[in-house]
Amino acid sequence: MTSALLTSGLFGQAYGDAEIARAYSALSVLGRMLDVERAWTAALTATDAVAAEDGAAARAALARFDPVRFEPDTDRDGVPVPSLVAALRAGLAPGPAAAIHSGLTSQDVIDTALVLVSLEVLDLLATRTGRVLAALADLTRRHGDAALMARTRMQAARPATAALRLGAWERGLRAQHDRRAAVRSELAQVQIGGAVGLRDAPEGRAEAAAAHAAAALGLRAGPVWHTDRAPFVAFGHWLTLLCGALGKLGQDVALMAQQGVDEIALAGGGGSSAMPHKRNPVRAEALVALARHVAGLQGTLAQAMLHEQERSGAAWALEWLTLPVMAECTGAALTHAEALLGQITRVGRSGERDHRSG
Amino acid sequence: MTSALLTSGLFGQAYGDAEIARAYSALSVLGRMLDVERAWTAALTATDAVAAEDGAAARAALARFDPVRFEPDTDRDGVPVPSLVAALRAGLAPGPAAAIHSGLTSQDVIDTALVLVSLEVLDLLATRTGRVLAALADLTRRHGDAALMARTRMQAARPATAALRLGAWERGLRAQHDRRAAVRSELAQVQIGGAVGLRDAPEGRAEAAAAHAAAALGLRAGPVWHTDRAPFVAFGHWLTLLCGALGKLGQDVALMAQQGVDEIALAGGGGSSAMPHKRNPVRAEALVALARHVAGLQGTLAQAMLHEQERSGAAWALEWLTLPVMAECTGAALTHAEALLGQITRVGRSGERDHRSG
Amino acid sequence: MTSALLTSGLFGQAYGDAEIARAYSALSVLGRMLDVERAWTAALTATDAVAAEDGAAARAALARFDPVRFEPDTDRDGVPVPSLVAALRAGLAPGPAAAIHSGLTSQDVIDTALVLVSLEVLDLLATRTGRVLAALADLTRRHGDAALMARTRMQAARPATAALRLGAWERGLRAQHDRRAAVRSELAQVQIGGAVGLRDAPEGRAEAAAAHAAAALGLRAGPVWHTDRAPFVAFGHWLTLLCGALGKLGQDVALMAQQGVDEIALAGGGGSSAMPHKRNPVRAEALVALARHVAGLQGTLAQAMLHEQERSGAAWALEWLTLPVMAECTGAALTHAEALLGQITRVGRSGERDHRSG
Amino acid sequence: MTSALLTSGLFGQAYGDAEIARAYSALSVLGRMLDVERAWTAALTATDAVAAEDGAAARAALARFDPVRFEPDTDRDGVPVPSLVAALRAGLAPGPAAAIHSGLTSQDVIDTALVLVSLEVLDLLATRTGRVLAALADLTRRHGDAALMARTRMQAARPATAALRLGAWERGLRAQHDRRAAVRSELAQVQIGGAVGLRDAPEGRAEAAAAHAAAALGLRAGPVWHTDRAPFVAFGHWLTLLCGALGKLGQDVALMAQQGVDEIALAGGGGSSAMPHKRNPVRAEALVALARHVAGLQGTLAQAMLHEQERSGAAWALEWLTLPVMAECTGAALTHAEALLGQITRVGRSGERDHRSG
Repeated sequence: MTSALLTSGLFGQAYGDAEIARAYSALSVLGRMLDVERAWTAALTATDAVAAEDGAAARAALARFDPVRFEPDTDRDGVPVPSLVAALRAGLAPGPAAAIHSGLTSQDVIDTALVLVSLEVLDLLATRTGRVLAALADLTRRHGDAALMARTRMQAARPATAALRLGAWERGLRAQHDRRAAVRSELAQVQIGGAVGLRDAPEGRAEAAAAHAAAALGLRAGPVWHTDRAPFVAFGHWLTLLCGALGKLGQDVALMAQQGVDEIALAGGGGSSAMPHKRNPVRAEALVALARHVAGLQGTLAQAMLHEQERSGAAWALEWLTLPVMAECTGAALTHAEALLGQITRVGRSGERDHRSG
Repeated sequence: MTSALLTSGLFGQAYGDAEIARAYSALSVLGRMLDVERAWTAALTATDAVAAEDGAAARAALARFDPVRFEPDTDRDGVPVPSLVAALRAGLAPGPAAAIHSGLTSQDVIDTALVLVSLEVLDLLATRTGRVLAALADLTRRHGDAALMARTRMQAARPATAALRLGAWERGLRAQHDRRAAVRSELAQVQIGGAVGLRDAPEGRAEAAAAHAAAALGLRAGPVWHTDRAPFVAFGHWLTLLCGALGKLGQDVALMAQQGVDEIALAGGGGSSAMPHKRNPVRAEALVALARHVAGLQGTLAQAMLHEQERSGAAWALEWLTLPVMAECTGAALTHAEALLGQITRVGRSGERDHRSG
Repeated sequence: MTSALLTSGLFGQAYGDAEIARAYSALSVLGRMLDVERAWTAALTATDAVAAEDGAAARAALARFDPVRFEPDTDRDGVPVPSLVAALRAGLAPGPAAAIHSGLTSQDVIDTALVLVSLEVLDLLATRTGRVLAALADLTRRHGDAALMARTRMQAARPATAALRLGAWERGLRAQHDRRAAVRSELAQVQIGGAVGLRDAPEGRAEAAAAHAAAALGLRAGPVWHTDRAPFVAFGHWLTLLCGALGKLGQDVALMAQQGVDEIALAGGGGSSAMPHKRNPVRAEALVALARHVAGLQGTLAQAMLHEQERSGAAWALEWLTLPVMAECTGAALTHAEALLGQITRVGRSGERDHRSG
Repeated sequence: MTSALLTSGLFGQAYGDAEIARAYSALSVLGRMLDVERAWTAALTATDAVAAEDGAAARAALARFDPVRFEPDTDRDGVPVPSLVAALRAGLAPGPAAAIHSGLTSQDVIDTALVLVSLEVLDLLATRTGRVLAALADLTRRHGDAALMARTRMQAARPATAALRLGAWERGLRAQHDRRAAVRSELAQVQIGGAVGLRDAPEGRAEAAAAHAAAALGLRAGPVWHTDRAPFVAFGHWLTLLCGALGKLGQDVALMAQQGVDEIALAGGGGSSAMPHKRNPVRAEALVALARHVAGLQGTLAQAMLHEQERSGAAWALEWLTLPVMAECTGAALTHAEALLGQITRVGRSGERDHRSG
């Protein structure tokens, strides 16, 4: 999750998301890293870069490997791949050992694995966004005709109906939902460059092997992008927009729930330790906090573009420090949004009077 | 420009860009705001929402208006539009007066004018990017075969050629250059929503009038997006990526220019007041600073997504505080990049020895 | 830790800190929250706001409470305090029940508990900083006289000795170390304001009770600061400066370790999966990444200053989302710095030649 | 000001501050740079590092220099100092020429000049803060007893009086006002280190000369801090807290001004181009936007801590890109706050009914 404070049970799932966290957890990421190694061993075999029997022995070693018992020496290497490769090759004869990872580098494995995880996360988020959009459509159906004061610059502007505001929520969110295919397509490529990004191994067959591995992983081959981090920054941009659209919804709900404004009614709502009668719009507030946090993190993630030389440990780590948190926050925001919309029993004024601006 | 310190001549154009600043200056933006008002008066006339003679009188008033002498009362209104509309209508009979701005709101005028400015800026930046890409291609042609040590994680990795690094610069930048059409298309829409975003004036003809105005301005009509700020945030994202790709180039050049590394030679370069013999890679450093600044600003711009209710003065202003600065910084970065590439007289090692990693 | 990716074992302690994470974990924070409730029950008793026997029964209930088995309903309330208070009062008669928490609100308990945790974290970090400073002093003793090229703006400037750079590291870090007492003093105050920040309960004895509770907790009483978040933002500022000083050290080490520059020698260093001969300065790179991440987070934490009305759920959560991560990152940075300094076997040029700038 | 859009008249002084901008303008900063050069020439003379007649000739040259006609070649050097020194020494014999700037470097002049400017800005801001605090005290005197609903988590909590909220504004702002002496003291030191920060020129008299120059400038001498940027980051922190306290005030006013809440009445207020009857709380909104912008910029400024080697052009420029903007925004925010408080004609409910929470 997002920090020890918010992780350990005290704050429930208010600022974290167990399902997204699982996608970024060691076992899950290690699973994708093994997928990459398997696809690469198959590619080496298929392109005759290694002998068929060496490839088969390597495949068997990969199949035997138990990720649960693996303990990487990241404190030494900075990344888990060197110790993973050593573990995968342990006990193998030189031939089969060379049929594992040869021609790849740590970054190839980590970047491609994180592409796979990101696509999985993107799909999870898109499914939830679809549910939020359905809830919004349902809400508009039920409450769209209710009277609601349109407000601009925090001031009553003109009498309108709830459909105005609900429609704005829906359009803002749908615009990001509609963007998911483009984001997916931008992300769905292998990063295979080898030691320094030349994609020159196995000699004379590197492009063929990359294409083979990409196909096995359901990804595009495309050119090397080891130092061009735009695909991950663009994924962060999408998360930022998605979470931002939900933050607007949350801010609006918190404003509508104010006594005196009274433009929304929520079933449930948080209690107060000092004022048990209160019903705090805690999910609406969480949406605002999560959107601001994700926006700020995008400003840090974007610094990963300054990826010096052929591989930057410093710039690369900024991606790891930000993107998984951004994804979890967006996941939590979608959960809040769906639950919050489900709590709504009324949108618009309850009846008797109208605040025409004055 | 970007701050009084960097604006006033002391720092030249190192961190600002006069051409981009001009695009965002009062006269330029006011010009685009008048374009919007003109297009709207024409749309009101074409849809018979106003009488032909009232439309003609309004057009004449718009043509007479001298933006140079206009002084908006922004301190009172927060935006210049109310006083602009008052000035445009001054002395007109009710009929012609009503043929100006009726059905629009301040946000319509400002957002659409800033779309037009942004498209102009996008084109300026794209032209410069094209020149930087051409310079990179030329550099690769001349120096691509020179020996260069590939370096990963700040360590010598493998002997390679300059084409490896130059190619990475080129691919990273071209990826953003290729994105310009998509960004342009996302931005190129009018924002016409009227007082609260309902797009309901002139009654019964609002969609037709919006379509007419959009066509006159060379923009798409599309739905109202007054509270969905994703188009501007996406423009900022593009600036961030563009500037980030240049920041990587700058960081690399600064590293290559180090004594001991000696992988690049630059003609010119900045002098030192204490060490006149030094040649500082000042443009390379500026590229790094500009990219980091723009990245951070994107984290603030993205907060503009939390645009509450039907119009948020607070969230809206975040766009004005960040986007023009991001555009200027990107403009300055492109100028630095082009000049820096022009200073390069050698890429790669000058000869005698090779640092094979050890 | 700092995200599911970096938490789950794959990246070891490279970007997290188990000891700091423990300080922010549920059990630890809950422990401090119970400290606050205990101090308050004692204060209510000491000020005769509750009967002595009710206070005693409440104390007994507090002593019996098992935090390990407590499951807060944060998803409902947004904060764990309402369910904690309900659990503490469960089964108590009205008198003893009223001797628990009466006059406090959730924010009082959480803010004051997080003050206590922050002070504990501050002390942990200060102890580690002291060790890093000692290692720096030792390094200067051993290597301070070695020849080292002073470099400005990424260019060789003048021959100097290692003491120049080591001294700058030491001064920059010591400046923050020396600030710790001031930061501690600013933070070391209870937040006790009651329901809306009036500090008016128990009636007529509120100040006395607050003073009593503060003394029991080893904190200052001071005025209510429920909506003035400067103390926590100032703590974040200190973390940012501390981590920033370490980031400079890391950046320098990574630059010094470059082949061709060769101004430092490190024992150990990370391996590469493609180039086993390489020794990557992974801790130096981590220092850079952590410092940039913490700096960016400070930009988000500072938004918590916009804490609307008498309590903002949205602004408050920004503190929880950022500060624990900033503390962990700073903790990890100190661990890296100490280990990195321990790896250094040489500072300065190994001998034969000097890069006088040319 | 803060960007071409906000600078050029269209937005008045809504997001900029002419007085602060003047302090950071070329002529003002150049004036402080000349102060530094003059103090240094005097210090060289007083420590007998140069002959008295050479010092006198240098002083005369410094007195003759016309900053208005000076055009630095920053595009070449990255900083204006090399061309300034060349201009100052133009036409002088070697002796007097050597009595100018010898032993200093560009960074010494720029950093110390910006310290002087920052102190001037700090005093300007402190004076304005004092006025805002006085306005707040006056407001509390006049309206403190009015009924006001205390609101927590965007929900009515308990009936209270206006003094609760006004007092929170006052305490939050005063806390930062009280910090000004500490910030001033931290900033008020010369940066004199010479070419690489050794402070070794003039030989054997460097410390004496630095002390002499510091005294002439009204600053502390202290150790070299050329690579420890904490003083400027701490200045930014203070601006962030000050602007943040004002942002809270602005957010509260905007919320209080909502129809239905009606807890404040403002004379004046911005007009709308579509709804002339509206009175938008434009200054309140500006306070929110400015505070968020400054907070985000602090996240970028803090990255200046990663100041590599003996001088980083890249990290240094981040200070110039952010601090002057942060100061202008804070200046604008104080102006808005004072004007906004002056507009307030009522705080609290106007009478008939009370929203007891329900």
